[in-house]
Amino acid sequence: MNYRLIFSNLGTVLVIEAALMIPALLVSVIYGQDDVHAFLISIAILIVAGFLLHLLKPKDGQMYARDGFATVALSWFFISLFGSLPFIFSGAVPAFIDAFFETVSGFSTTGATILTEVESLPRGILFWRSFTHWVGGMGVLVFVLAVLPLSEGRSIHIMRAEVPGPVVGKIVAKMKYNAMILYGIYIVLTIIMIILLVIGRMPLFDSIVNAFATAGTGGFAIKNTSIAAYNSAYLEGVITVFMLVFSINFNLYYLIITGHIIQALKSEELRWFLGIVAAAIAALTFFNLKEYGTVVHSFRYASFQVASIISTTGFATTNFDLWPTISKFILVILMFLGACAGSTGGGIKTARIVIMAKTVGREIKRMLHPRSVSVLKAEGKPVDQTVIHGTAVYFITYMGIFAVSILLVSLDGFDMVSTLTSVITCFNNVGPGLGMVGPMGNFADFSDFSKIILSLDMLLGRLEIFPIFMLFSPSIWRRS
Amino acid sequence: MNYRLIFSNLGTVLVIEAALMIPALLVSVIYGQDDVHAFLISIAILIVAGFLLHLLKPKDGQMYARDGFATVALSWFFISLFGSLPFIFSGAVPAFIDAFFETVSGFSTTGATILTEVESLPRGILFWRSFTHWVGGMGVLVFVLAVLPLSEGRSIHIMRAEVPGPVVGKIVAKMKYNAMILYGIYIVLTIIMIILLVIGRMPLFDSIVNAFATAGTGGFAIKNTSIAAYNSAYLEGVITVFMLVFSINFNLYYLIITGHIIQALKSEELRWFLGIVAAAIAALTFFNLKEYGTVVHSFRYASFQVASIISTTGFATTNFDLWPTISKFILVILMFLGACAGSTGGGIKTARIVIMAKTVGREIKRMLHPRSVSVLKAEGKPVDQTVIHGTAVYFITYMGIFAVSILLVSLDGFDMVSTLTSVITCFNNVGPGLGMVGPMGNFADFSDFSKIILSLDMLLGRLEIFPIFMLFSPSIWRRS
Repeated sequence: MNYRLIFSNLGTVLVIEAALMIPALLVSVIYGQDDVHAFLISIAILIVAGFLLHLLKPKDGQMYARDGFATVALSWFFISLFGSLPFIFSGAVPAFIDAFFETVSGFSTTGATILTEVESLPRGILFWRSFTHWVGGMGVLVFVLAVLPLSEGRSIHIMRAEVPGPVVGKIVAKMKYNAMILYGIYIVLTIIMIILLVIGRMPLFDSIVNAFATAGTGGFAIKNTSIAAYNSAYLEGVITVFMLVFSINFNLYYLIITGHIIQALKSEELRWFLGIVAAAIAALTFFNLKEYGTVVHSFRYASFQVASIISTTGFATTNFDLWPTISKFILVILMFLGACAGSTGGGIKTARIVIMAKTVGREIKRMLHPRSVSVLKAEGKPVDQTVIHGTAVYFITYMGIFAVSILLVSLDGFDMVSTLTSVITCFNNVGPGLGMVGPMGNFADFSDFSKIILSLDMLLGRLEIFPIFMLFSPSIWRRS
Repeated sequence: MNYRLIFSNLGTVLVIEAALMIPALLVSVIYGQDDVHAFLISIAILIVAGFLLHLLKPKDGQMYARDGFATVALSWFFISLFGSLPFIFSGAVPAFIDAFFETVSGFSTTGATILTEVESLPRGILFWRSFTHWVGGMGVLVFVLAVLPLSEGRSIHIMRAEVPGPVVGKIVAKMKYNAMILYGIYIVLTIIMIILLVIGRMPLFDSIVNAFATAGTGGFAIKNTSIAAYNSAYLEGVITVFMLVFSINFNLYYLIITGHIIQALKSEELRWFLGIVAAAIAALTFFNLKEYGTVVHSFRYASFQVASIISTTGFATTNFDLWPTISKFILVILMFLGACAGSTGGGIKTARIVIMAKTVGREIKRMLHPRSVSVLKAEGKPVDQTVIHGTAVYFITYMGIFAVSILLVSLDGFDMVSTLTSVITCFNNVGPGLGMVGPMGNFADFSDFSKIILSLDMLLGRLEIFPIFMLFSPSIWRRS
């Protein structure tokens, strides 16, 4: 491992985080609230820590895949650690573990909160909290679409393999170019959303922070009743559409920009994703009919909640914890499925679900016709066996972590549904679960130990498991 | 498909089932109860139906793998259908779907019951009910150790691949020979258990039926409070040991008989299995300490329940639904893990868990050292890539069926824990779940639709999924 290189890179990351805190500082100054000092101190600490780490000039500039993974994993950990400072200094979240949980939840675009009440928080803090979603979403896009494909053990990461898009060579310049395009798309979509929200008479501040939370598919709300507080079908409609927009593979937007609209619409993953969304909305509209009286009403809440959950945003317009059992299980399954690969959404990802479904189908065919040869195709092209294997291994690892996390969190002794869904919602980067952690609940009552486990789950889910795993492997820390 | 061959074989199966009903008939006669007629009519129907099917003389005796799978899957369905007749005719379970559920639960060695009260049932019916477990266990052993290995799509079925044992050639004589050895071991172990129970002063009738339920790892009880009713540490100890004995790969007993004791003890799957059992007992003893006061007490209930759940028997000596959340989740995870491959137990099977754990470990190694070559070994031998792939596909299919089943059963609108664990316990052939279907509960309140889904889950779990899947595939029914 090239320690010096990794830590000097982390220094750069912290200085960037200091810069990213400036907008929140400005918000705090503009509204003249008493959280100005919290940001000033935090920024000072970040700059000092960043420069100190930067002093570790690398002797050797060579960066291997594992150095890259370690950098990414540690970056997420460090920005969460330092990003929690404003919460602590402002007194908004005085306990360190709570502040860390909240910040990990922000950067991992989860949206699970330990706050029982958010409306009384100063504006700067609310801005910073939602801004972490936006930054996290941006980081994920670059990580997943520009960094991961460089890895040699890429079979686990099927992200781009399936969808044509900007061609990634092993050249840093190319990577930077792609990152710029992705940033551009991300920023433009966010701005369009803010404009549409403002048109719907949502206050400007609310429009900006809600757009941040939507773009990152995070879901931190600045109202205690989440999006239900605005009580506007138009605003819910805009948010529903944009939650789905940010759950789609960003390579498709690249295709559209470069004039390949038809190719983009032909994306198999997109069709599966929209098919699942449509089916889930139809099912929930039907099963919740009794709760809401009319089809229109039921459809309104079903479509918002499906988009919110499958995109792993986690906004709520209704207390879905009160829905019938079948509806709740549909939501839980959507949490696992998650968004498209190459989006800011979490979960297992539609691309993996499609490959797994096809793998099972092929196996049945093989048993019926042992001598037949059948090729598994996705996006019209044959899928390599290593990708199929990687997807399966990913799923197995996923379920393994899931089982272990449940056991650890269940030590707190809360009821089974709350325990189960707290892990499901954190690991899949959704936000709310059911029961105690339902849309009207929060994570405040968990022990510090559980909060750490759930934070780890958020990071594992966000970084596609393996980079975090590698950090815990002794062999990675051996000098080579 | 060779329909004539399949249905003529099914005819033979029904005649055998008629013969298997005779012991229950004799019990009924001996105790002079009013269920004699139920068995007489059932036996008559079985013989007539069997001979009618047998009239379909096959034109061609050639049997392909898929014919074999269809025969096995249909056999399990047919014996459950006809096996439910005594329940219906005796009035013990008047509703057809209930009787079918109970019989599938019996033959699949699950032990889930729709009966709210068992102690008032006539002896013949109680005998038949437990005897279905014993017959089912025998059927599974032969299916898994003698029939499956003949399949060409064997990568899914790792059963014997891992453990050395009687060599299976593609010769029917060899298969019959192996089946005879397995039957012999099974019968001798059952007899030893009966003797040990009688020594502990369990009534002879109880000893016999409880031994049947243990040998098949089924778990139908003839007391309303299951094994708790005997309130004897000795009897619980005997049953604990035998539940574990019947969860071990029967090839190991073959090795022991033929003098290869050391080779048997070296079995990697056995060591993992016993390791998991020991860890689970230790954990439950610790976490339940508050409930039971002393370590000895807590250990007594923990060891019985761990053996009962991981072996997928499902007997109970305590209402574990009242245990702390962590203890309940441990039991739920044990339900999924299940017993060793090649035993009468259900679940995913230890061999598959071991292979999956090692696959994940290898993947992490590969990511750290992309150029390294590492071979996955089990039982000291390299595991073929097709076995690894097959195991992964099996797990994916497993979780897929699990998700779909939960959605279907949740239509009944019961609470989430009852819904979830009803599917878990049926699919893994355990018996009791939690909540409404806890050790003191039953499946009576589910709708007929759910009972059919759960019956299907029991068969899917029992027959390692794919034979049942194939029955639903249109292409298998096309004439070739």
